Amino acid sequence: MKKIKVFSPASIANLSCGYDVLGVCLENIGDEITVKKTKNKGVTIKNIQGQNLSTDISKNVAGVSAIALLKETNIDYGFEIKIKKGIKPGSGIGSSAASSAGSVFAINKLIGEPFSRKELIKFAMEGEMIASGYRHADNVAAVLLGGFTFVRNSVMHDYFKLNTPIELAFAVIHPKIELKTKDSRAVVKKNVTITDMVSQSANLGAFVSGLYTENYELIGKSMNDIVIEPMRSILIPKFYETKSACLSEGALSCGISGSGPSIFALCKGVSKANNVANRMKEIYNKLDLEYDVFVSCVNDQGVKVLKFK
Amino acid sequence: MKKIKVFSPASIANLSCGYDVLGVCLENIGDEITVKKTKNKGVTIKNIQGQNLSTDISKNVAGVSAIALLKETNIDYGFEIKIKKGIKPGSGIGSSAASSAGSVFAINKLIGEPFSRKELIKFAMEGEMIASGYRHADNVAAVLLGGFTFVRNSVMHDYFKLNTPIELAFAVIHPKIELKTKDSRAVVKKNVTITDMVSQSANLGAFVSGLYTENYELIGKSMNDIVIEPMRSILIPKFYETKSACLSEGALSCGISGSGPSIFALCKGVSKANNVANRMKEIYNKLDLEYDVFVSCVNDQGVKVLKFK
Repeated sequence: MKKIKVFSPASIANLSCGYDVLGVCLENIGDEITVKKTKNKGVTIKNIQGQNLSTDISKNVAGVSAIALLKETNIDYGFEIKIKKGIKPGSGIGSSAASSAGSVFAINKLIGEPFSRKELIKFAMEGEMIASGYRHADNVAAVLLGGFTFVRNSVMHDYFKLNTPIELAFAVIHPKIELKTKDSRAVVKKNVTITDMVSQSANLGAFVSGLYTENYELIGKSMNDIVIEPMRSILIPKFYETKSACLSEGALSCGISGSGPSIFALCKGVSKANNVANRMKEIYNKLDLEYDVFVSCVNDQGVKVLKFK
Repeated sequence: MKKIKVFSPASIANLSCGYDVLGVCLENIGDEITVKKTKNKGVTIKNIQGQNLSTDISKNVAGVSAIALLKETNIDYGFEIKIKKGIKPGSGIGSSAASSAGSVFAINKLIGEPFSRKELIKFAMEGEMIASGYRHADNVAAVLLGGFTFVRNSVMHDYFKLNTPIELAFAVIHPKIELKTKDSRAVVKKNVTITDMVSQSANLGAFVSGLYTENYELIGKSMNDIVIEPMRSILIPKFYETKSACLSEGALSCGISGSGPSIFALCKGVSKANNVANRMKEIYNKLDLEYDVFVSCVNDQGVKVLKFK
């Protein structure tokens, strides 16, 4: 294999009750990453379509993750990367994770797959470090493993995939304001009461139970964030109005996607998710603010090969 | 049915990673509660064997829970309760929960089962309120539902049963010092950092996942308490020495049972649990302190009828 093109999808981290723990992989929206082998060693980024991002490999997440991977190999050739961004940076649906994970997934294929998808997570986390200032695995685990993923301990590289109830579908609105993960983390207070810790962790545990037992009602009511959402929602226009509209339309839950500003609503069934997406649009149409809305089932496969030669 | 005798078992709350959330029901150790119908309305406690406890129905947990149940019925007769305590109060293995849950379970049977086992939890919680000053459901849910139980929200009466991997077995040591739940709660600090909340909740979620996937390694490593155990362990003699010995003997995990002073070790297989129980004894034999040690599989049935007429 000399050249490969992969599709690296968007993802939603946190999912209300699992701050820095939960992630889910989405369909359709994502980055296309093409990597070809070069005679000269090292990594170059030839071009980036769709977004104005640095092609400096020490600043671009796809370059940083690729270098991290290659440090653990003995490859005597190099790689040229082209990126077609389908996700806007700062949208809260895993833009950096898609490029970071897509790059290492493609290179791993080109060098004969010495690493498993799970082993690639640690390299992709280096891209997240450059993008947001901390090594979080919640988005990249979702992109690489697919489905709903759980980060027990990112330092110990302890992450795994959960069960995916087949009827779940997301409606997502991305209000076009840029919110850097760094800034969105800054508004999160440093301490919580034990009482709030118990409630928040009970919701996370109940959500996990709901996924395995495919109990949609339990999944929905457990996606409740009493710690982070009250702080971060102030950065997102019409957050509570949107949430209230989604829930009254029958969404199982609604919350902030990752560090925002995107808002997700989880629904039972694509048809319901389409209705909920329309309610999101109605609210944002009243504002003088551009937005994107899309609907996605859970992508149980994760990043995938589009073509190779 | 005029008279019924039930066996109401011991239970372990918290299970390291699920403070105020998790519980598990044990076998063999428990209270025997006999209830007979009386012509005169109201509840009396005729006698209590095995422990010196009040027979005043407003002070005894079995009386308090019974009264709470009867308030929601229109029964024109009464009940006389006899209790044979198999669990020492203040041991940390659900003494009050066993009496409280056993009493309402027995009375519910005598009056034709208007309530489900789950519906009985709220009445049994009133007994817990008298015993420890707060309405916690973690022990009583385990006794009434059996197996591993999860309290998502005790105020909303939202609790459910988890999956029970069949090979799990507990070794438990009860050092004979009395530790009131009230006092043991007093040493718990009021706040935690967000970082600790994330770690603690990640362990709870991972533990739940481990139960469903029957992943014994994940179950063990997730039973890690970085918030409560460091504070409460100071009240328990030789806690860390015991924990270390249990883990080196091959226990999956070791922690404080409920609010202590009992220490539990979770093992894969009864034979391993027996070996671990012996290590517990070795450590406590060096102290001038009485103790009980026992081994138990998970009791998936919960409180049960022994006989009736």
